[in-house]
Amino acid sequence: MNSGTRIGIIGSEGRMGHALAEAVAAAGEVLAGGIDKGGDPVALASACDVLIDFSSPHALEANLDAAMGAGVPILVGTTGLEERHHWLIDSAAERTAVLQTGNTSLGVNMLAHLVREAAARLGEDWDIEIVETHHRMKVDAPSGTALLLGEAAAQGRAIRLADHSVRGRDGITGAREAGTIGFASLRGGSVAGDHTVHFLADNERIALSHLAENRMIFARGAVRGAQWLIGKAPGRYRMPEVLGL
Amino acid sequence: MNSGTRIGIIGSEGRMGHALAEAVAAAGEVLAGGIDKGGDPVALASACDVLIDFSSPHALEANLDAAMGAGVPILVGTTGLEERHHWLIDSAAERTAVLQTGNTSLGVNMLAHLVREAAARLGEDWDIEIVETHHRMKVDAPSGTALLLGEAAAQGRAIRLADHSVRGRDGITGAREAGTIGFASLRGGSVAGDHTVHFLADNERIALSHLAENRMIFARGAVRGAQWLIGKAPGRYRMPEVLGL
Amino acid sequence: MNSGTRIGIIGSEGRMGHALAEAVAAAGEVLAGGIDKGGDPVALASACDVLIDFSSPHALEANLDAAMGAGVPILVGTTGLEERHHWLIDSAAERTAVLQTGNTSLGVNMLAHLVREAAARLGEDWDIEIVETHHRMKVDAPSGTALLLGEAAAQGRAIRLADHSVRGRDGITGAREAGTIGFASLRGGSVAGDHTVHFLADNERIALSHLAENRMIFARGAVRGAQWLIGKAPGRYRMPEVLGL
Amino acid sequence: MNSGTRIGIIGSEGRMGHALAEAVAAAGEVLAGGIDKGGDPVALASACDVLIDFSSPHALEANLDAAMGAGVPILVGTTGLEERHHWLIDSAAERTAVLQTGNTSLGVNMLAHLVREAAARLGEDWDIEIVETHHRMKVDAPSGTALLLGEAAAQGRAIRLADHSVRGRDGITGAREAGTIGFASLRGGSVAGDHTVHFLADNERIALSHLAENRMIFARGAVRGAQWLIGKAPGRYRMPEVLGL
Repeated sequence: MNSGTRIGIIGSEGRMGHALAEAVAAAGEVLAGGIDKGGDPVALASACDVLIDFSSPHALEANLDAAMGAGVPILVGTTGLEERHHWLIDSAAERTAVLQTGNTSLGVNMLAHLVREAAARLGEDWDIEIVETHHRMKVDAPSGTALLLGEAAAQGRAIRLADHSVRGRDGITGAREAGTIGFASLRGGSVAGDHTVHFLADNERIALSHLAENRMIFARGAVRGAQWLIGKAPGRYRMPEVLGL
Repeated sequence: MNSGTRIGIIGSEGRMGHALAEAVAAAGEVLAGGIDKGGDPVALASACDVLIDFSSPHALEANLDAAMGAGVPILVGTTGLEERHHWLIDSAAERTAVLQTGNTSLGVNMLAHLVREAAARLGEDWDIEIVETHHRMKVDAPSGTALLLGEAAAQGRAIRLADHSVRGRDGITGAREAGTIGFASLRGGSVAGDHTVHFLADNERIALSHLAENRMIFARGAVRGAQWLIGKAPGRYRMPEVLGL
Repeated sequence: MNSGTRIGIIGSEGRMGHALAEAVAAAGEVLAGGIDKGGDPVALASACDVLIDFSSPHALEANLDAAMGAGVPILVGTTGLEERHHWLIDSAAERTAVLQTGNTSLGVNMLAHLVREAAARLGEDWDIEIVETHHRMKVDAPSGTALLLGEAAAQGRAIRLADHSVRGRDGITGAREAGTIGFASLRGGSVAGDHTVHFLADNERIALSHLAENRMIFARGAVRGAQWLIGKAPGRYRMPEVLGL
Repeated sequence: MNSGTRIGIIGSEGRMGHALAEAVAAAGEVLAGGIDKGGDPVALASACDVLIDFSSPHALEANLDAAMGAGVPILVGTTGLEERHHWLIDSAAERTAVLQTGNTSLGVNMLAHLVREAAARLGEDWDIEIVETHHRMKVDAPSGTALLLGEAAAQGRAIRLADHSVRGRDGITGAREAGTIGFASLRGGSVAGDHTVHFLADNERIALSHLAENRMIFARGAVRGAQWLIGKAPGRYRMPEVLGL
């Protein structure tokens, strides 16, 4: 008899759903079931110890309701959330444990922590530049993860990213303005995601990088997050807490 | 008695002029003299075996005249040349050896050769992306060297760079268009010049990079070019010939 | 009816065999069949247009005989070949087209070509250092591909690698000896294979790199090599010819 | 009248001494004087607010005595210290402020802090590998800074570096042993010092790097350390405290 944690997957048919099923097995846990568009989250929730939701913003409310009804925690990795989705999450978090995150990779969250540390301790004479590379099919730039890293740098410096970011540098730009955070994006091949945050000073440089070999890291991180949620009190949690950051 | 080549520097007072003087000495050659704004290139030309000109486009005509008059070859490293300057150079090259270049670094010219080779032999399914980093005082983007590398890639593919370059990627860009060459620029610290040309395919990548630790490489390359010019027949030469590319 | 090239795989059960089957389909060709230990290469050869052999040195003779008997070309990607295996290949190449290679990745072969070019044209004042990273399970160092790249560098310089390689630098080494080629190996995680060849001069550096995201590139390169072999005259061929290098 | 801090340099004639004089001026402070072999540290100490010592272990005792006698703090950047030198420093630190460090670069100390953080929070399934590159004249490997970074990683993991380090990997090494910290060294050109600490897991990697463009960073860090020492109570301090780490 397998005594592992029973994990239910919402959004089980997509590329991420398949990766999650593989990651659940690799972690020695039990795949309690999976649903996709049209599936019943209530039945799924009643059959598992924790839910992982990588479906769509439209399904979020029903999924949160199912989690609350069954009294199981839920990890929300769905992207494209708007303000009202965050209200729903806050509300659900009063009754069950909810971990919402835009990036479940442990490595990226660790990198964000290191970037915040470095930005907080190095002066403004260390210029910050963030460069990311993704596959040729990606339609937007910079990547959400690059912006997440930019936010970490801005937090470290106690500034607002929106007021200090420089994107799409091209042409006669003039000298670099002190205190800004630059972004650059490369596209090509099948790159799953490279991110580097540069800190550039007079005569020395620090570079902090993350490279994802493939999408499995997001699935593994989600499963680790789900395991961590078991037994947690109601509340809203974040990936850095999983890492103990 | 020093039997080295006598080298004359035009534009001797600037940062590049000082680096050139240092490089002449390091190469075991003789610094025959140097002039800057207001100096007499005719007198200088008559006292040396070869001229190196890193002054300004405005002084170019007088400098070429002096070289022709004295029958000495001249290396022109001045930037910001326009079409009419190139006509002047072509004309002077009928009577003396002239090497004009936008980048005297041997490493960068070698890299451009390798980029041309790779672009010619790898299919269009290898996306090309060029990223460069320079110090915070640089006012334009991409760097002239990044464009030089882009031209090398375009030559390798037998396309026109102007028709295929993508710059300043930002926002909703859509999927990457096949056959394009992307450029991205980072700015910060005191970086003398980093350039990387990425070739990104499905599941594998090639990256070709050059890193300049400081400006001395441009001076060393200019001196090597000047040494190479000694004894050459009248004509217009390019840095790749110095490398035997 | 599919009119694609019929490809037979020898060594079909292993990790590489599965990747080959996937690559055959992705290339729009026909998987004519596959055999592994104990299978009959003669039957397989008679049912296909070209063979790909990633099995074992012990099976090589029978595989070559089958290819000759059926008059089909064969790509040999098996590693661990000894001198007598090469004699067998030379002999078979008198009657059919044989492409033998230690690395079927197009990118790695392209990189080797660029390294040879750079080493041939840059003087000995450009120190050559090769660093590779592979997953934690790899049991030997440096990687075969690092050595292949070192051979390319040595060929470019017209020296013997064995006489000039420096490996496992540690402790009081003394200053670097001019003309040597250094190797360093990193091990960790699931890295499929990173290789960088550094050319380090005074004040400037060139780095030529290849990164494999996963093993599919070896399979894709093998299929491309097999396609290229169709219709070739008897003879022994190498991967660089597939690239037109 | 210049009201800057008066800084005295011990070891003023070497390459580092010259860099220090330049850094003192660049920081807007006053160069109170400099001595080298045979100079009188007592006279120098009496004429300045703080001493910077980059001379030799042999001179350390006299230098510390001079600092104590004049009641001025002292930054000791001398390398090659043995156990008895550390006793002398501890003893002097009872009467004046002493900052002893093997690396005055702010960037390297920041990097060490980040490495300690990452090693403490990432599990043993993240393999740690450290690679460094230095100029061709360097006679030992790995660099002192690579070892300093290795110590930081070991502290983060609460292990002893000496028991877990793997150096000079070459030949049939077997699979990587869990929990070890690998070192690799590249040598060539005029590289002032590159260091990268890799954390390699299944399918993802983090890399933390520092690049020194030249030696000025060591001088700048020493001056910043000296400024920080002014007014400090007697005691022994370390560079991380200067950064507030």
